[in-house]
Order: sequence, then C-alpha cells, then structure tokens
Amino acid sequence: MSSPSSLDELIEALRALPSVGPKSAQRMAYHLLQRDQRGAGRLARALAHALEVLRHCERCNTFSETDICQRCANPQRDHSLLCVVEMPADLAMMEQTQLYNGLYYVLMGRLSPLDGIGPRELRLDKLLARASDGAVKEVILATNFTNEGEATAHVIAELLAARGVRVSRLSRGVPVGGELEHTDSGTIAQALVERRAL
Amino acid sequence: MSSPSSLDELIEALRALPSVGPKSAQRMAYHLLQRDQRGAGRLARALAHALEVLRHCERCNTFSETDICQRCANPQRDHSLLCVVEMPADLAMMEQTQLYNGLYYVLMGRLSPLDGIGPRELRLDKLLARASDGAVKEVILATNFTNEGEATAHVIAELLAARGVRVSRLSRGVPVGGELEHTDSGTIAQALVERRAL
Ligand SMILES: [Zn+2]
Ligand SMILES: [Zn+2]
Repeated sequence: MSSPSSLDELIEALRALPSVGPKSAQRMAYHLLQRDQRGAGRLARALAHALEVLRHCERCNTFSETDICQRCANPQRDHSLLCVVEMPADLAMMEQTQLYNGLYYVLMGRLSPLDGIGPRELRLDKLLARASDGAVKEVILATNFTNEGEATAHVIAELLAARGVRVSRLSRGVPVGGELEHTDSGTIAQALVERRAL
Repeated sequence: MSSPSSLDELIEALRALPSVGPKSAQRMAYHLLQRDQRGAGRLARALAHALEVLRHCERCNTFSETDICQRCANPQRDHSLLCVVEMPADLAMMEQTQLYNGLYYVLMGRLSPLDGIGPRELRLDKLLARASDGAVKEVILATNFTNEGEATAHVIAELLAARGVRVSRLSRGVPVGGELEHTDSGTIAQALVERRAL
C-alpha cells in the first residue's frame, strides 16, 4: 500500500548525499523521476563510472584515473616543492594563482579529533613517505586557516621537522578563519609569496 | 592538468538535483567518492533501477512498478471516491489520516502559469477521463491551500462541473498558505470530514 520499493530505495539512497534529510531526498527523487529523467540517467552513469575509474594518485593522493596523475608525472613541474592542501578544490585554487609550479599532496581531509580523524585516519604516514623521497626540498603547508587546518599544519610541521625536512606555511594573507576555496586567487598569491619558514 | 574527466562529469551530473549549485555538487562528489563509496554505489544502482522499473499508474498517475498500482487494483477501496492531490507525498499524508478509503489521482504537479505549466502540461485531460469512468461519484480536491494549489482546484472544479461530476474540496482546516506535506494528520482529518461541496 505504500510507495513502490524502488522509489523508497532511491529516496533512502539519496540520503548518502551530505546534508540531505528525508524530505529533501523525497523532493530530489520526485524531481529526478518526474522532471529530469535524462539528468537522472546521466547521474546514475556518471556515479557508477566515477566509482569504477577513479582512484587516488599514488604520489599526490588526489583523485585520478591513472596510478600516477598527469600533474605528478609532468617533468615540467618543480619536483623539489611539495604543497600540502586539504582537498582537491584547494589544489585548484593554488593552481589559479599561476605562481606555483611545484607538486602537491592532497590530504583529502584534515585532523579533526571531534570526528575521530587523527594522524592515522588522515594517513599522514603516506605524506611523510612522499616528502622523504629525496627530491623534495621544501614542503609548503597550505591547509585552511581554520582551527582544524592550523592544527593540521602544526602537527605535520612537527612530524616533518623531526625528519629534517624544510617546512613553510602560507603567510596569513588568507583571512583568519577563512577557507582557501572561498578566497580570491590574488590573496592566495600574496600568501604564497610571503610564506614563512617554520 | 585539471581534474579527471570522470570527476568533472560526476560534479556536472549532480547539478541535475534541485537547488544544487557548482560548489554544492563538488562537495557532494568529494563526499561520495571519499567518505561513502558504498552509499555512492547504492545511489547509482537505486537511480538506474528506479528509472528502469518506475512508471506512472494508468489510473492514479502516481509512481508505480506495475501498469496499475496496488492501491488502484484493491477491491477493498471505495471506487466511487476519487481524491485529487498534487504529489505522492500528499497522498501519503491523506493515507495517514486513516479516514479515507477511496482512490486517488496524483497530478504530479500543479498549475503554475509562471513556470509555463497549464492544463495541457499538467495533463488534466487524463484526470477528466479518469473521473468519467462511471464508477466515480465524487471527486475530492485535496491540492495544497497555496495560491497555485487553490487555482488548480478551481480550474479542475470547473472542468468537472461542466461534465456533471460532483466535486468537493477539503475544508479550510488546513492553514491558508500551508502545504499538506507539512500539516499534522489530525488537521487533515478534520479538513476531510468538513469538506465542502463546490
Ligand atoms: Zn598526483
Ligand atoms: Zn494507481
């Protein structure tokens, strides 16, 4: 007597999306099935395809369709610089400054003790191994200037310093409490130039 | 040099969801790929499956996995009463009152001239044919008490009256401007009992 199971299952599955509650999921399901079946089909295929082909680059940890991403494999980039960011969106913002030609390491998150994300969950061992490859001369910490981002930078700086790696941090040109993703690239460029040694 | 095409395509595809902009789609994609691959796989499958098996019930127009839904095929329901609602969620609210044992017709929308949705787009001809099957003795209009819902009820009432069909409207126990989906079932029950002839 209730709704068809395939509809219920779709509504339930939509709740995997961040900040989508039951009402919102229901509205999305109706919209996709009623108003945009073409978009819905495209979404189903894109999701299945992305799950199938995307993995993490062995060197920089960002999403990639190959074991080593194009950027890491590019000999034109300066392999002696490694910039650590939280998410791929932050990497994109760094690239927009057009001032940085080194490589990246994408944490895919940040330390967040309240959410149970410590150094182990963030796989900082992978970053430490990457930064110790012999080619890297300086690690530039470009995590967000939020509390969690600052704490993450602090922990990484200590771990790298203990291994004798030179570490720097973007200058505070980025507003305190701000996120890279929402900062203009001019400000980020300035912060890059004025990065301070740690 | 930019992000992998499968990731870009997923982010673009997520924008088919209602009120999801570029930033939001990006956040959703990262979440699904990074934090909830299982949920992402489930969503891809649920979406593909729903698109494949769901159609509209030939009689009541709601989502169904069969040509005629379970409710319309149920001989225990009163086939002389036809309740017209906007969306499946409204039907669910009517059912929760446990006061109604008739059948339904789900418009899958409402008249909305500003969005270009007139009687033709809403397929009111299908409702008129359904209400004229000989078994239906009364059509109960249970569209929302919003401006668009009231206008929809008004137009349907005129069309049905011209065909000699008895029409009633839920009483105004539902708060003016309110939507059924967000009304408690007790209020809806009262509105059902006090429905007025049109
Ligand atoms: Zn890479
Ligand atoms: Zn039906």
